[in-house]
Amino acid sequence: MIIVLKKNATPQELEHICQKVRELGLTPQVSRGIERTVIGVIGQEEKLQVQPLEAFPGVESVMSILKPYKLASRDYKNENTEFEMTHGVKVGAKKIVVMAGPCSVENYDMLLHLAKSVKKAGATFLRGGAFKPRTSPYSFQGLGEEGLKYLRQAADETGLLVVTEVMDTRQVELVSQYADMLQIGARNMQNFDLLKECGMTKKPVLLKRGLSATVKDLLMSAEYLLSRGNFKVMLAERGIRTFETATRNTLDLNAIPVIKKETHLPVLVDPSHGTGYRDFVTPMAMAGVAAGCDGLMVEVHPCPEEAKSDGEQSVVPGQFEEMMRKVRLVAQAVDRDI
Amino acid sequence: MIIVLKKNATPQELEHICQKVRELGLTPQVSRGIERTVIGVIGQEEKLQVQPLEAFPGVESVMSILKPYKLASRDYKNENTEFEMTHGVKVGAKKIVVMAGPCSVENYDMLLHLAKSVKKAGATFLRGGAFKPRTSPYSFQGLGEEGLKYLRQAADETGLLVVTEVMDTRQVELVSQYADMLQIGARNMQNFDLLKECGMTKKPVLLKRGLSATVKDLLMSAEYLLSRGNFKVMLAERGIRTFETATRNTLDLNAIPVIKKETHLPVLVDPSHGTGYRDFVTPMAMAGVAAGCDGLMVEVHPCPEEAKSDGEQSVVPGQFEEMMRKVRLVAQAVDRDI
Amino acid sequence: MIIVLKKNATPQELEHICQKVRELGLTPQVSRGIERTVIGVIGQEEKLQVQPLEAFPGVESVMSILKPYKLASRDYKNENTEFEMTHGVKVGAKKIVVMAGPCSVENYDMLLHLAKSVKKAGATFLRGGAFKPRTSPYSFQGLGEEGLKYLRQAADETGLLVVTEVMDTRQVELVSQYADMLQIGARNMQNFDLLKECGMTKKPVLLKRGLSATVKDLLMSAEYLLSRGNFKVMLAERGIRTFETATRNTLDLNAIPVIKKETHLPVLVDPSHGTGYRDFVTPMAMAGVAAGCDGLMVEVHPCPEEAKSDGEQSVVPGQFEEMMRKVRLVAQAVDRDI
Amino acid sequence: MIIVLKKNATPQELEHICQKVRELGLTPQVSRGIERTVIGVIGQEEKLQVQPLEAFPGVESVMSILKPYKLASRDYKNENTEFEMTHGVKVGAKKIVVMAGPCSVENYDMLLHLAKSVKKAGATFLRGGAFKPRTSPYSFQGLGEEGLKYLRQAADETGLLVVTEVMDTRQVELVSQYADMLQIGARNMQNFDLLKECGMTKKPVLLKRGLSATVKDLLMSAEYLLSRGNFKVMLAERGIRTFETATRNTLDLNAIPVIKKETHLPVLVDPSHGTGYRDFVTPMAMAGVAAGCDGLMVEVHPCPEEAKSDGEQSVVPGQFEEMMRKVRLVAQAVDRDI
Repeated sequence: MIIVLKKNATPQELEHICQKVRELGLTPQVSRGIERTVIGVIGQEEKLQVQPLEAFPGVESVMSILKPYKLASRDYKNENTEFEMTHGVKVGAKKIVVMAGPCSVENYDMLLHLAKSVKKAGATFLRGGAFKPRTSPYSFQGLGEEGLKYLRQAADETGLLVVTEVMDTRQVELVSQYADMLQIGARNMQNFDLLKECGMTKKPVLLKRGLSATVKDLLMSAEYLLSRGNFKVMLAERGIRTFETATRNTLDLNAIPVIKKETHLPVLVDPSHGTGYRDFVTPMAMAGVAAGCDGLMVEVHPCPEEAKSDGEQSVVPGQFEEMMRKVRLVAQAVDRDI
Repeated sequence: MIIVLKKNATPQELEHICQKVRELGLTPQVSRGIERTVIGVIGQEEKLQVQPLEAFPGVESVMSILKPYKLASRDYKNENTEFEMTHGVKVGAKKIVVMAGPCSVENYDMLLHLAKSVKKAGATFLRGGAFKPRTSPYSFQGLGEEGLKYLRQAADETGLLVVTEVMDTRQVELVSQYADMLQIGARNMQNFDLLKECGMTKKPVLLKRGLSATVKDLLMSAEYLLSRGNFKVMLAERGIRTFETATRNTLDLNAIPVIKKETHLPVLVDPSHGTGYRDFVTPMAMAGVAAGCDGLMVEVHPCPEEAKSDGEQSVVPGQFEEMMRKVRLVAQAVDRDI
Repeated sequence: MIIVLKKNATPQELEHICQKVRELGLTPQVSRGIERTVIGVIGQEEKLQVQPLEAFPGVESVMSILKPYKLASRDYKNENTEFEMTHGVKVGAKKIVVMAGPCSVENYDMLLHLAKSVKKAGATFLRGGAFKPRTSPYSFQGLGEEGLKYLRQAADETGLLVVTEVMDTRQVELVSQYADMLQIGARNMQNFDLLKECGMTKKPVLLKRGLSATVKDLLMSAEYLLSRGNFKVMLAERGIRTFETATRNTLDLNAIPVIKKETHLPVLVDPSHGTGYRDFVTPMAMAGVAAGCDGLMVEVHPCPEEAKSDGEQSVVPGQFEEMMRKVRLVAQAVDRDI
Repeated sequence: MIIVLKKNATPQELEHICQKVRELGLTPQVSRGIERTVIGVIGQEEKLQVQPLEAFPGVESVMSILKPYKLASRDYKNENTEFEMTHGVKVGAKKIVVMAGPCSVENYDMLLHLAKSVKKAGATFLRGGAFKPRTSPYSFQGLGEEGLKYLRQAADETGLLVVTEVMDTRQVELVSQYADMLQIGARNMQNFDLLKECGMTKKPVLLKRGLSATVKDLLMSAEYLLSRGNFKVMLAERGIRTFETATRNTLDLNAIPVIKKETHLPVLVDPSHGTGYRDFVTPMAMAGVAAGCDGLMVEVHPCPEEAKSDGEQSVVPGQFEEMMRKVRLVAQAVDRDI
């Protein structure tokens, strides 16, 4: 931690801060420059991160040396996290996992049909919402437990795994009974009670980046999961909010190499939400794989014009198959399987 | 609803869409321009808002004529919403309500002392967090129910009302027992289950705008509350996320006149979170009142350097008193009381 | 300057950096923490600001202690800058200056009529574009020199000063012959050749903040002007680009107290461009004054529906008069004149 | 053009607008819905785009049916633009063009050495700044004409083409004498006088997207070039400004498929400015190619720690060679050459 004093800070103010630092069992190291006096603090920085140092009189600014995440950082664990699930599916390994399915679970027949088709094209997870976070209270809110049952059944029949969203702390137990992986949506990335509950299950978690979350914020939310003992965490980039309106969101692929540098956790790309338009899903899936992602999540619907949600960003099964063919070529070029 | 067709849309595609429109009990009105054919839809637009029209073949874009919020709109209710609480406090009336107190409730003595001081300076609500949403799992998470008790007791002793955050659906009942107004934080603005639960209580709600929420998003979240029968809703502008780093967030005061134009609900400004720095709280509180807000929420702490959270943005009681003096002059200039 | 080394930086890398620091006549001060080694540099930081220290092997990050602007900073000059123009108009003084007029100069009669009306309502500058930066090549591009003549004539006849935009280095001389103050538009805030040319004139300059410029960037552009010897600089906040679409731009009033803290230069608010809609001009002008601005710039047009540009954000003369009445009350409340 | 009236618009207001529409030689088509009356306008939309319709009394909002760019649109020209330069280099063809070199031209020996090395690795253009747009007036501003000479000479000796930035209208002629392609930088994307000047030359132009420019804005700036008769235009995505601070900018790869859909012009990706850090250049170059770009621009420097600008984002020649090897594999996977 580096504490920069104001130009006109008094010796009393300096001493007051140094005393506080010493009280916490740390060592202040004062360095008097030409224009500013600076205090470097030696010791465990965390002790100071909870202290509002900028509130001390005479302080101009405070700069952290260390990142605020611990368990999520490469400092804590340098090798990539990889975890195994049923059917021998490995997350974070050489083979890129593909999660596909409808935005919302609507009925069993359609879901089973779709599950067969995405499985054939190479998907390993069946995705689909039973509990849906919708901007409007008047939009379809999901089938609830019935949807979970459909997902489980369709996945079992086709040899897929289930990933589905949990929106509320009260649903964690229920969703855990049906799903192989719990999804925490972008709008809940900082729903800290939900993070705590999911951290206490043994279920793998897919944690989606919030629309205005920095990579640092995302890793801090992951830290909530890890610090409760759940290390089976996959991160997801699904688009951030910017001024650009040509796409629904701005899929931030920079985040892939940044995440790879900062953390050991695997990361997935969601080009459906990331762009919001069907035509852009395939090129951005390919770009995501080229950038180094460990997974893809894609919305597929047999008849997007009848979809109860997100029809304009869903691809049809034939397009998904074609996407998989193209993505496979890129995966090979970057020495990955899919 | 206006549906714009692609330049090369076929007559079959046009007819297919018109048929769908008719099936919903609406009337399509086709207008052939020089470069594009456009379908205007006559009838209740809501029926189409749930249909993914952009997913239909031949469609280039879809434009809504109406706003997606109903109960929150000025179309539904033109006169300003005003509601009365205990101690005769009116929200949305000529007198601007002021909510002040520490970021987190830390102990009773400090809280009572602070309550007395902010009451004397003109505050009507005591604010303070008992359940705290913290970016880091290692930060202070709040005193929980104990904090709620302190708030209630300090408020009762001083004649203030209590406003405090509820973070999780499971806390709604508990917090409702102690608080006069439930606060839904920025990070939970789209926690739809929480909105539903708070909508079903009879408690007034302070709904904070999310960091990347448009005013439209905010009003859609308010719609969740209103559509469950709770019309005692106050909105809050507390800063959005932009590229600017000189302030913690960018307090978007434009939102005040926009909200006043679009909705009948009252709106509050939070210059503490909106700027993140103590020095900017007073000028932005003054600007908020000049822009037309109905309330202010300010973090006050007797000793910010000891605060368990947000010390750098908390003003001390003396500064709060001075802020109130200045804000009062602005309020008079815009024909309001405080 | 603080240089943070990577966890695994070698002693050779450390020594290599220290040597570089010494070569520049500065003193490296090495501080070995538990997790990271840090080098503090004593001496004139500017010498290092031009050196890409992050490119050195073993460096994790580099943090500046000082702000990159010098002449624009309060460190350099603590008292507010105030400069006098013809007709005894003072910029940066207790009296807030008001610049009003049409977006584009269209014809002389309209301009003169408008000049009389805004003068009567209290404006001190006549604004209007003769050279217009337009997003589309097919939009009206301004009357050029003819427009400048009209501005000069209408201003002289009414006792106003002229502020008008200069878009290109080749126009600086010409515009200087007619204008009292040169305006550098938001899109040209980092047109560095234009800044250099304007810096070399003796003309006062109104420098508008770019749509994606931080306050730091704005001050760096001001530094271009100051470092060429022109200290008659007024800054302008006119809205930044964010995800919000309810307003054309997001007028960032936080920038006013931030600018007041960081620099001695006066600052103006432009609520017309800042919001993009006539209805929001008055409340945001009032908010700007409450936040502490030294000037206002407002688009006024006798018949906005006939305006060749920006009609939807122009107020009519009657609205301007009413705005001035309201703004005056706020100005008095914050101890300013207008 | 669709004009939506306010709920309470009067028949007089409706008639007033219809009359205006007719005066322009267009046909108004009135459609009375349940909640709003809407006017569709038949005829050439451009006539209305210059009219501030939102300023008319009774108008709630105005929606365009057509895009504001004409010559840049796929409506105007559906097949991809491809243009040939000296040495048989084709821009916009199957083979992806690679532009590489230092941020600034510093001296001839280094430049020649670098030119040889990037040529060998597969680059077709030598890039390098002779006129440098720098945020700080105290930073290195470029060698000027001397730099241009070095570029020309080094390119001629190695069989490369020269691409270099032109910052000011007064430099267009000079830079055109030395360069094969004129670069308009992000900060000058809306320097309309510069666009006009470059539009009037016969030189190919590389037009970089501004930090806060939408794709629509970028195409409008391209329209300035095209409408002056210069169709040899390549667009460049180089990162936009968002709230994320882990990278210098947010390289927006969504823009690649969006641009491919909207316009016939070729597009390039600049991962050096787009990310700001050397480590992220290779993955983002690979992602850019997978997303469908027609070119790459990369900063290469033999000794980044000595670079006069942008050292932290420059790769060394060995890294560039390795990047080219990886990018080539991705290019093959997407059926392109490099």
